[in-house]
Amino acid sequence: MQPFLSHPFDDDKLKEECGVFGVIGVADAANFTALGMHALQHRGQEAGGIVAYDPETGFNSARRFGYVRDNFTSRDVMDTLPGSLAIGHVRYSTAGSKGATAIRDVQPFFGEFSMGGAAIAHNGNLTNAAALRRELIERGSIFQSSSDSECIIHLMARSIQKNISERIKDALRRVEGAFSVIAMTRTKLIGVRDPLGVRPLVLGKVGEGWALSSETCALDIIGAEFIREIEPGEMVVIEHGEVQSSRPFAPAKSRFCIFEHVYFSRPDSILGGRSVYETRRQIGVELAIEAPVDADLVCPVPDSGTPAAIGYSQQSGIPYAMGIIRNQYMGRTFIEPTESIRNMGVRLKLNVNRALIKGKRVILVDDSVVRGTTSRKIKDMIIDAGAAEVHFRIASPPTAWPCFYGVDTPDRDKLLAARMSEEEMREWIGVDSLKFISLDGLYRAAGAANGRDNASPQYCDACFSGEYPVAPADQIENGFRMKAAE
Amino acid sequence: MQPFLSHPFDDDKLKEECGVFGVIGVADAANFTALGMHALQHRGQEAGGIVAYDPETGFNSARRFGYVRDNFTSRDVMDTLPGSLAIGHVRYSTAGSKGATAIRDVQPFFGEFSMGGAAIAHNGNLTNAAALRRELIERGSIFQSSSDSECIIHLMARSIQKNISERIKDALRRVEGAFSVIAMTRTKLIGVRDPLGVRPLVLGKVGEGWALSSETCALDIIGAEFIREIEPGEMVVIEHGEVQSSRPFAPAKSRFCIFEHVYFSRPDSILGGRSVYETRRQIGVELAIEAPVDADLVCPVPDSGTPAAIGYSQQSGIPYAMGIIRNQYMGRTFIEPTESIRNMGVRLKLNVNRALIKGKRVILVDDSVVRGTTSRKIKDMIIDAGAAEVHFRIASPPTAWPCFYGVDTPDRDKLLAARMSEEEMREWIGVDSLKFISLDGLYRAAGAANGRDNASPQYCDACFSGEYPVAPADQIENGFRMKAAE
Amino acid sequence: MQPFLSHPFDDDKLKEECGVFGVIGVADAANFTALGMHALQHRGQEAGGIVAYDPETGFNSARRFGYVRDNFTSRDVMDTLPGSLAIGHVRYSTAGSKGATAIRDVQPFFGEFSMGGAAIAHNGNLTNAAALRRELIERGSIFQSSSDSECIIHLMARSIQKNISERIKDALRRVEGAFSVIAMTRTKLIGVRDPLGVRPLVLGKVGEGWALSSETCALDIIGAEFIREIEPGEMVVIEHGEVQSSRPFAPAKSRFCIFEHVYFSRPDSILGGRSVYETRRQIGVELAIEAPVDADLVCPVPDSGTPAAIGYSQQSGIPYAMGIIRNQYMGRTFIEPTESIRNMGVRLKLNVNRALIKGKRVILVDDSVVRGTTSRKIKDMIIDAGAAEVHFRIASPPTAWPCFYGVDTPDRDKLLAARMSEEEMREWIGVDSLKFISLDGLYRAAGAANGRDNASPQYCDACFSGEYPVAPADQIENGFRMKAAE
Amino acid sequence: MQPFLSHPFDDDKLKEECGVFGVIGVADAANFTALGMHALQHRGQEAGGIVAYDPETGFNSARRFGYVRDNFTSRDVMDTLPGSLAIGHVRYSTAGSKGATAIRDVQPFFGEFSMGGAAIAHNGNLTNAAALRRELIERGSIFQSSSDSECIIHLMARSIQKNISERIKDALRRVEGAFSVIAMTRTKLIGVRDPLGVRPLVLGKVGEGWALSSETCALDIIGAEFIREIEPGEMVVIEHGEVQSSRPFAPAKSRFCIFEHVYFSRPDSILGGRSVYETRRQIGVELAIEAPVDADLVCPVPDSGTPAAIGYSQQSGIPYAMGIIRNQYMGRTFIEPTESIRNMGVRLKLNVNRALIKGKRVILVDDSVVRGTTSRKIKDMIIDAGAAEVHFRIASPPTAWPCFYGVDTPDRDKLLAARMSEEEMREWIGVDSLKFISLDGLYRAAGAANGRDNASPQYCDACFSGEYPVAPADQIENGFRMKAAE
Repeated sequence: MQPFLSHPFDDDKLKEECGVFGVIGVADAANFTALGMHALQHRGQEAGGIVAYDPETGFNSARRFGYVRDNFTSRDVMDTLPGSLAIGHVRYSTAGSKGATAIRDVQPFFGEFSMGGAAIAHNGNLTNAAALRRELIERGSIFQSSSDSECIIHLMARSIQKNISERIKDALRRVEGAFSVIAMTRTKLIGVRDPLGVRPLVLGKVGEGWALSSETCALDIIGAEFIREIEPGEMVVIEHGEVQSSRPFAPAKSRFCIFEHVYFSRPDSILGGRSVYETRRQIGVELAIEAPVDADLVCPVPDSGTPAAIGYSQQSGIPYAMGIIRNQYMGRTFIEPTESIRNMGVRLKLNVNRALIKGKRVILVDDSVVRGTTSRKIKDMIIDAGAAEVHFRIASPPTAWPCFYGVDTPDRDKLLAARMSEEEMREWIGVDSLKFISLDGLYRAAGAANGRDNASPQYCDACFSGEYPVAPADQIENGFRMKAAE
Repeated sequence: MQPFLSHPFDDDKLKEECGVFGVIGVADAANFTALGMHALQHRGQEAGGIVAYDPETGFNSARRFGYVRDNFTSRDVMDTLPGSLAIGHVRYSTAGSKGATAIRDVQPFFGEFSMGGAAIAHNGNLTNAAALRRELIERGSIFQSSSDSECIIHLMARSIQKNISERIKDALRRVEGAFSVIAMTRTKLIGVRDPLGVRPLVLGKVGEGWALSSETCALDIIGAEFIREIEPGEMVVIEHGEVQSSRPFAPAKSRFCIFEHVYFSRPDSILGGRSVYETRRQIGVELAIEAPVDADLVCPVPDSGTPAAIGYSQQSGIPYAMGIIRNQYMGRTFIEPTESIRNMGVRLKLNVNRALIKGKRVILVDDSVVRGTTSRKIKDMIIDAGAAEVHFRIASPPTAWPCFYGVDTPDRDKLLAARMSEEEMREWIGVDSLKFISLDGLYRAAGAANGRDNASPQYCDACFSGEYPVAPADQIENGFRMKAAE
Repeated sequence: MQPFLSHPFDDDKLKEECGVFGVIGVADAANFTALGMHALQHRGQEAGGIVAYDPETGFNSARRFGYVRDNFTSRDVMDTLPGSLAIGHVRYSTAGSKGATAIRDVQPFFGEFSMGGAAIAHNGNLTNAAALRRELIERGSIFQSSSDSECIIHLMARSIQKNISERIKDALRRVEGAFSVIAMTRTKLIGVRDPLGVRPLVLGKVGEGWALSSETCALDIIGAEFIREIEPGEMVVIEHGEVQSSRPFAPAKSRFCIFEHVYFSRPDSILGGRSVYETRRQIGVELAIEAPVDADLVCPVPDSGTPAAIGYSQQSGIPYAMGIIRNQYMGRTFIEPTESIRNMGVRLKLNVNRALIKGKRVILVDDSVVRGTTSRKIKDMIIDAGAAEVHFRIASPPTAWPCFYGVDTPDRDKLLAARMSEEEMREWIGVDSLKFISLDGLYRAAGAANGRDNASPQYCDACFSGEYPVAPADQIENGFRMKAAE
Repeated sequence: MQPFLSHPFDDDKLKEECGVFGVIGVADAANFTALGMHALQHRGQEAGGIVAYDPETGFNSARRFGYVRDNFTSRDVMDTLPGSLAIGHVRYSTAGSKGATAIRDVQPFFGEFSMGGAAIAHNGNLTNAAALRRELIERGSIFQSSSDSECIIHLMARSIQKNISERIKDALRRVEGAFSVIAMTRTKLIGVRDPLGVRPLVLGKVGEGWALSSETCALDIIGAEFIREIEPGEMVVIEHGEVQSSRPFAPAKSRFCIFEHVYFSRPDSILGGRSVYETRRQIGVELAIEAPVDADLVCPVPDSGTPAAIGYSQQSGIPYAMGIIRNQYMGRTFIEPTESIRNMGVRLKLNVNRALIKGKRVILVDDSVVRGTTSRKIKDMIIDAGAAEVHFRIASPPTAWPCFYGVDTPDRDKLLAARMSEEEMREWIGVDSLKFISLDGLYRAAGAANGRDNASPQYCDACFSGEYPVAPADQIENGFRMKAAE
């Protein structure tokens, strides 16, 4: 029997696909950008890229697979990226496309136009990219990547506008879906958010310069001051130290992604004026009210379940404890010894605090259930350590629909909640109880005092509700059936 | 002005210098060993080595700088380490010795004797190594490393005993200081702990085979059952599935390192029959009793301050909160932008949850204060985020003396507590209050109901008390003045 | 004083910029292609790329800096290039463009069109590429590289033809200059040579399949049979085992590059039905007739001067000897010791056979003089070894004009022969005599029994004569003055 | 059918196992040493090491697998080797021992003694190493490598002499076999040659400093003046710019390795006052006299057969021609396409000049025949190219005995000449004629006007004659039967 490779990183999570960052008006802009990307690493771990502009050497770029810390920290690389203007992108590349050629999929994308060059970095997903690509190829464009985002730069190349900012507007008016875009020319840093504002984008001030970022935590790391969010449908053009705002799109009601509050964003970021950590703690409070249970300990599934577990403990009075410990030195793959049978993938990442758990009734708080496979393994570990009872409390409603706005979700038939009722899920996972927060409870925790406005929801919650604020055209063409069509 | 390199890993901690692991009687022993070393990575991050024995290809070894996950996971490496018997070592290499030749310092050390080969891995530090090395060189031994541990293998080579187990006894009777040693011959796995039992060593059962490990968390990762600790002064020889125990040294009272409870060991390990996590939480409880203060939030300095902060919160009733967030993707070095002024080293690793901290009176719980530089930077971050008051609570007594038993400590004059009173430290760090747990409080939390037995202390606490259970001969020769001599 | 880097590879040569290879109808086409590229490595050492097509996985590509042997030999890379159809390209990248982004300049270039994908590899240089690029960008094409060859794929993308072969014709009718192009679609291998046939391209048969290659030596390495040369202005389309030939361009008289005979091609290749080695030997014979001198030894400057030196020796009766020895293990750069003063660059590559040379009258035969710096260093080495007399004989006429058809030449003012008479060159190099073969002599050696037809030359010899068969439009726009204009 | 790996480097040669170099009294001694090792790369391609001494940082070393040019040219490595005294070693590591641990086999070896450190580099082979190793292990020495040379440093460690030079004498008086040793202490560069002087060692002057080297070609590369050979049985100690000579061994008649003249040494080196190139050319002259044949061309098997082919051509009057071309870019391994059947290993390295060979009667001159496999493949290539006749002429007598003095030879039963008569070999290789130079002819070419003195041969020619000047004790113990015993 051969040893086999395990992939210990949890693939049983929804994955944010991108983070974007840009800075203008500071020396060594690429170093700032690398730091910003590092702070956004949780939004994409597979690859990253930086484009910087320097009057002497022009546009320079570096795109690499792997962590920011491993690629954008050496003098050899960073010295090739001089200048006071730079943008960067971190990305989660979908399975299968990684390999010899896929470095071409790593953003930022760059185009040389007759009035000069421009680079763009895109967080989100375009729902009409396939149709646009077909049309552009028909007209003679050559695509270098398999990325939906590349459509934007080709649309810019074909715009007849005389300056790049106007070409960006032209291009973005053609695309549908979710986009927070950071772009740069030789003199400008540009930020745009789609009309619904599905993905975040914030503005900061750093010394005499300005920064744009997916999240505020990346402003903190470079010592920038958080000024404000870019508003849904807003475009900002920063040049000569001035920020100019415009509204290139038809007005629409904001539909920010509620899962950014639940899991994607870092707990020390600020979304919609609220601490993400505090929203998550409040989810735990709501969960304790909605789904109480008598137990000895409240334990988070580290690390994402921690704030909700703290809230649950505080609301319920049941002591909070670190029943599961996360290995800080986790990496990619390990060769497992042949005699090992079960759970190694999870044990490499997590270990149970056996002496603590033994004989206890334990409430486990996790952020979400996707396929459910991880939940089952964690339950096994806890039972194996001698827990008397295991109760799962989930900080989000059942995830029953895929996301088409920039999140890597399994196909619908892989989602546990798309196939089972709550009770069936409880039984399949094998725990004493399993409860999810209600959609209303989640909205309340996220600041909507009266819960969800079902007539006109305040957030995009398609992954829970199946209500897609933008019809996913490419997917529908490929056979995806929306809720109404079921 | 040039960008400069920051070293974001905290060097303001005491550092455990080693972890050891060995396994016999299982297929693919080296893979088990790699997993065990991975679980012990917190005990040494700079380098690691494995020696495996296979009847067909003999002894094979691989020694590498860097993390276990990066070196001992590829098929290329692991396939060179066949066999059912292997030992491994992770190590923190002291500054300066890392470089082209220092791979020779990476254990296990191997020696070919007339009756066959043997390899050893050593956790601890020998206090008479310099004198032994001089003597051995005089007699014609050639040292390959700068490691104190290499003396053991040369003493074994010169022993006149006819088998390797006896030669190990011969050798270890000549050395002084702290040692938990795992050794292997072609057929035996051997474990020895020094008479005082300063460093941990545990025995586990895995399938039909046996494992030895610094900590129980490494038994968990391979699915081994924790059987018992190797006792101070005990030697176990495992062969043909049997464990034979002997006592090669004169009896002595156990003096286990109390800092293993405070910081070195992993919270999910079991030491002296107690959960490390639970001892640390109890330290927080004791601290809350000894050093109460009125405040709004109790925040750990992540991650090592977390259990004590939980205990402090539970005892005091002040809410526990994640006021400081740790970046999970931390690496080695980053090029800082030139305009950044302060604190980048800490910000790369930690960020304050600004929205949470603002206007609050905050209790920060940390495990220890060594140089104090980190404490000062963390205070700056918290104040910068708008905290109203900052109170430091430290889960160990003031660290005023260096350790010579296998821990990397700064020179005495670099230790803040060796130069300042508690009030001077408070003022230098710049916080509203600073309190350390008492030595008695620490002993109580670690299970000594009546606190420290000053006549015959239950633990080695030399780093706090200056009372060294074994005189550090080499250091004294080099001018170190013990407490009595002051 | 600091040690400095030397670049021991001779940069005092004209450099062929590319080699191309393609194969269809064989299993593991990419492996064949790697072997072919390896045999063509002398035509471009800086980078190489392969595109292969497999019905299951589609088009796959790998592009790397460095030698074929170092990049296209590992299973990891080659397994990503399955299929029975592949093309490859080796390239000499011009100074300065090598770095983080320049991998985009490495061919083959690939484009996805509405009727499917195509890849092209180009040997030569387009003389109107700058103007074409401006026009294409204006119309919305996005260039990925700084290569002139990329124009071809964009012209193909914009062609309205319905199949790719026709699009290639469309594109190549728009370009000017020198081109031997190998292209592939999902089912076809295509070869085209420009109307003048400046660069070589040959057809071979391998098993049931076919190969196209810059030179016949690459057919030999894969055991292919050399069938014939692709003719100037000819296009061949190979599909389903059939070779179809067409003539897409207006007819023109062939002007093959005569320097391919002198230096670029490998001595074991066959050009125009003649052994390259034999042509070079014959150049030596002609030189001995045109420029005799009394001496003791005829020594080649290795390795390119060897065949002409053999011919010179045979014609003159003066013994042939290896007076200069080449180091077989030459690499890129070495750190020179500070005390070394002169000539290290050459000594790393070459060493004089001192015992042989001492006191002798030596004839040195080299292929060409470009800047003359190498000639001067070699003369120094020979004199330093005690030669009594040094006579240089050069196997080509004075190189006085840059090449714009795919050869890397210095600017005109760097060419020794553009600035000096033969006697001035002799004095500057510092030898007893210096003679170049006449243009007529070279033509005779290359098979033109009556020498050069000055009214309508049989070869392109612009580098010697300044007579450019295609006006270099981009260069003229940049200020280059042709001979007539002087 | 799977592609398979070919190993295109010819393994059908005897392989010199080492080259040594050292320099004292020059700034950047390690850079000089790297250059010297580069010039000696033909003596060992698998690995190399340098030890340098600098008063401030002490002894530093770097040992690497691979070519000198790839390892000892980067600033990162060379900056770790400061000082004005350094020694280096290049090595051919025998098959199978290369891998994770074998870097320990790479010289120079270093030992720390009570009076300071010393490093040694050894060219040759000790014939009593196995016995010495057993004895040293018995007495408590720990060997780090599998190298015979390591005995020397352990014997030095156990010497009771008070200075290192005397300890070297002590150690070398205990060893048997062939050794040219370069050693260094903190202040001395030391060279010793065994009493028979089997391997070469030369002395050079470089500026104010001195160099020792295996061959003179390494003096040339650093611009050093060749002073003289170290004599058999001589020891030189160089300190403070002075060279002191002594004779530590009982006098013996010189038996220099005659194969150094035939193949090992570089053609531009000087051995025994003669140009190696000239000796080889003279071998060709002798061969033409001894073994004439009517033919059209004399072609060398490149590159080692070249000088003898030139001599053969000059003596016979048959034109010299490059019938076989060597690929300059040869590397280690290639994946061969599945359809290729034969000879790829040779074709990767060599190609026939088909247009030249076709229909010709060809004399091929090669340096030696070991297993004969390469000769057979080359014959196939030549026949395949259409040669009318093929005549092999070999520049050495039949190689019928293994070398135990530092040359990697196959076991005796793998040597073609140990199993077959000349006629059988001719038939097995499949050529029209096959002739070896006689032993007397070889001696004459090497300067012994009257040929071999059979009573007391002037050279070691054991590989041809089976007469071993030092009995190979370890081998005899392992069952090797010397000629007398047959």
